[in-house]
Amino acid sequence: MTSSSTGGEAERVKRDALLDLTPDEDERRRLERTWREVEARTTEALERRGVDGDVALVGSAARDTWMSGDRDVDVFILLPPGLDRDEFERLGLDVGHEVLPEGETEYAEHPYVKGTIDGFDVDLVPCYALDSPREIRSAVDRTPFHQDYVVENAPEGFGEDVRLLKALARSAGVYGSDLRTRGFGGYLLELLVLHYGGFDEVVEAAADWTPPVEIEFETPEKEFEGSLVVVDPVDPGRDVASVVSDDAVAVLQDRCREWLSQPRPALFEVERPKPLEPSELHAALERRGTTTAAVVFDAPDVVEDQLYPQLRKTRAAVVEELERRGFDVLRATSFADEHAVVYVELSVATLPEVERHVGPPVHVRGHADEFKEKYADGDVTGPFVSGGRYVVERPRDVCSAVDFLRSRDLLRLSLGRDVERAMERGYDVYVDGEVEGLLDEFGVELRRYYEPPPTWRPL
Amino acid sequence: MTSSSTGGEAERVKRDALLDLTPDEDERRRLERTWREVEARTTEALERRGVDGDVALVGSAARDTWMSGDRDVDVFILLPPGLDRDEFERLGLDVGHEVLPEGETEYAEHPYVKGTIDGFDVDLVPCYALDSPREIRSAVDRTPFHQDYVVENAPEGFGEDVRLLKALARSAGVYGSDLRTRGFGGYLLELLVLHYGGFDEVVEAAADWTPPVEIEFETPEKEFEGSLVVVDPVDPGRDVASVVSDDAVAVLQDRCREWLSQPRPALFEVERPKPLEPSELHAALERRGTTTAAVVFDAPDVVEDQLYPQLRKTRAAVVEELERRGFDVLRATSFADEHAVVYVELSVATLPEVERHVGPPVHVRGHADEFKEKYADGDVTGPFVSGGRYVVERPRDVCSAVDFLRSRDLLRLSLGRDVERAMERGYDVYVDGEVEGLLDEFGVELRRYYEPPPTWRPL
Repeated sequence: MTSSSTGGEAERVKRDALLDLTPDEDERRRLERTWREVEARTTEALERRGVDGDVALVGSAARDTWMSGDRDVDVFILLPPGLDRDEFERLGLDVGHEVLPEGETEYAEHPYVKGTIDGFDVDLVPCYALDSPREIRSAVDRTPFHQDYVVENAPEGFGEDVRLLKALARSAGVYGSDLRTRGFGGYLLELLVLHYGGFDEVVEAAADWTPPVEIEFETPEKEFEGSLVVVDPVDPGRDVASVVSDDAVAVLQDRCREWLSQPRPALFEVERPKPLEPSELHAALERRGTTTAAVVFDAPDVVEDQLYPQLRKTRAAVVEELERRGFDVLRATSFADEHAVVYVELSVATLPEVERHVGPPVHVRGHADEFKEKYADGDVTGPFVSGGRYVVERPRDVCSAVDFLRSRDLLRLSLGRDVERAMERGYDVYVDGEVEGLLDEFGVELRRYYEPPPTWRPL
Repeated sequence: MTSSSTGGEAERVKRDALLDLTPDEDERRRLERTWREVEARTTEALERRGVDGDVALVGSAARDTWMSGDRDVDVFILLPPGLDRDEFERLGLDVGHEVLPEGETEYAEHPYVKGTIDGFDVDLVPCYALDSPREIRSAVDRTPFHQDYVVENAPEGFGEDVRLLKALARSAGVYGSDLRTRGFGGYLLELLVLHYGGFDEVVEAAADWTPPVEIEFETPEKEFEGSLVVVDPVDPGRDVASVVSDDAVAVLQDRCREWLSQPRPALFEVERPKPLEPSELHAALERRGTTTAAVVFDAPDVVEDQLYPQLRKTRAAVVEELERRGFDVLRATSFADEHAVVYVELSVATLPEVERHVGPPVHVRGHADEFKEKYADGDVTGPFVSGGRYVVERPRDVCSAVDFLRSRDLLRLSLGRDVERAMERGYDVYVDGEVEGLLDEFGVELRRYYEPPPTWRPL
């Protein structure tokens, strides 16, 4: 580990944190035993089938960057590149189910088996055994090359630095490349440590990032977008940070500065707040004086990587439509568990019967004539001239944001497919004090909403 | 008069209109008599003082473009250019008061005398007798050259075409270069007829104007701005249309198209609507569902050219400040008589206790740190990250637009000087149904507001 510019206190906090973050001997032994068991069973299964394959531990467990308490073990079955896709998938599942008899089939880019051994969640993922990353056929084929790259380039103290950085990101809610978090995955954090040289150097650099930040292990093969771009050293056509949201970058940056200005254990810890109490909720509603509306429905039965992007899309569509209709949204978020919720807080929830409708510039004769004709005899005030344009005041479609949320028009918005189906089966709109009905399921989320830490983001 | 492309009906309407618009023999004789009287008295007064001066009838009366019913007669006293400014002003007033013994001193760029003879309002304005417009010392010195230019260039039927155009503009409320109207003055309309060739040609052209429209009798000596620029043929450093508001141009354009599509007497007539009735007012307030607030105070005792720009400035400042504070103004206007009124109709008149305050981008480290520190312990929610920036939700200063209008903060806005003094002496805010109190004085204006014709503009 490199020495810190934040002095002895920082070093002390890091040392203490690592005592908790680093797996102890017992954990390591249990992991090792699990891996050896999987390795033996897989080797045997491949041999019995006469397949010239191999088996490898990959991911954080394989490069000693795993966090104490982690239960995920990623094991790859390397299969001959000669197999066609169907054979490959059949063989992968066949071997997987033999190794993990209680396991279940999961579906990513292609199917694999997930099961439990001795308390560890083992992903047994088939991939092609390739000589070069140039031959990659699907995303998982890259993983063994990532593994090699990190192991070959990891300096002294790498594991400790990565664990600290993971803990910092995890505490801020930006650890994970899943589509709920849209944050920093383990491999990405490892690359940051490799690039800058250590935890302290990553933190110093990130505190001063001015997006877009581009880190190029290789010359990129295309243009990437986003606050942060990290070109994959094993595939210059891929941005390892592509899933990271701009706000996740900003949140990590905020945390890095916090660490530099005041290194403290809390920055490595995950705090789960107490659920909000009904009295606290009502006090918050009263204090803020806004109108709160929660669209509540049964969460569709899909994985989080499908659910959260759809919830986000739904929330964005609802907010955009409300604002287009002249209502003013102060803040909005969404959460999901058994139920899914789009939670909207409005500064302006009711509008008058009449709305201003601005037409074309008077000088654009054709459009101007059409506009005048269209509104000549209608139920409107005007047209008159304002700012060089024809303007009318016409009856407003919807004068209440809550009425809109309760109307069938809501379902005409561009919602996610599964969310739309779920909402078509029925949804409720809780207004103001009625949102108390969400406290049992979402009390923690509601405390975070009303008492947001600097790292708060709508998911 | 040129023949019309709008056919026989248009010609008939114009002929009928001209019967009303053109002064008859009796009017002409009375004007001639008045002018001769002023001419004789002025010549005598100059001779008695041994001044080598002259006297001239100028303006529409002198070029037979005056409208029947006009009572304004402009007479210029041409004084020797050798006089210095003090002598010039003293002599001008001295002669003026001798010619118009009951007259009063008025103040424009320099003082002059205004009086009444035989029912005509005579302006007796001193100016320097110059050989060339290049020698002009003040705005009035230009007038004799305008006179010469128009008389020399006026084609057959000029007076009739100008009268029709004046009537069209007057009917639309855009006739006059005063600062209340900010419309088309007589000289400007004459120049349009000279440029395009006649009433029909002006109307055809204006119907197709695409601003900015530049009409250059001479190569302009500077850059002019506005929807319409007409370079003065006697002074290329002056835009004759500089006072014309963009909306006045649009309104005239609208009227020209109306004439072309449906030539009718109403387009030459001035309609004064009936005052709005209380029941109609309350029905309008109810139907619209907005919040109406009228700021009412004693009109300051200044001429219209000072009052209206200040009222306009006040209205703009009030609207801008309300919108800056998050309220939404549907429409606003102002009127003045004994009282002056800023009339504001709000779509959003109340807002919640909390407001969103967007801070700097997180990556701008200095500003970001300051913002976080400023709001660290305050009575705010956040800061949290949104759209890459720090955001807080803080208590709103003013939650009611009416409260704001009633507060001393209103007087801190940039109002006109005389309006500000008048409001400091006290003002009322009428809300919703209370605006009924304005009907006696402003019933006509309120009908125009709630039933605006296409030519409606806030003054």
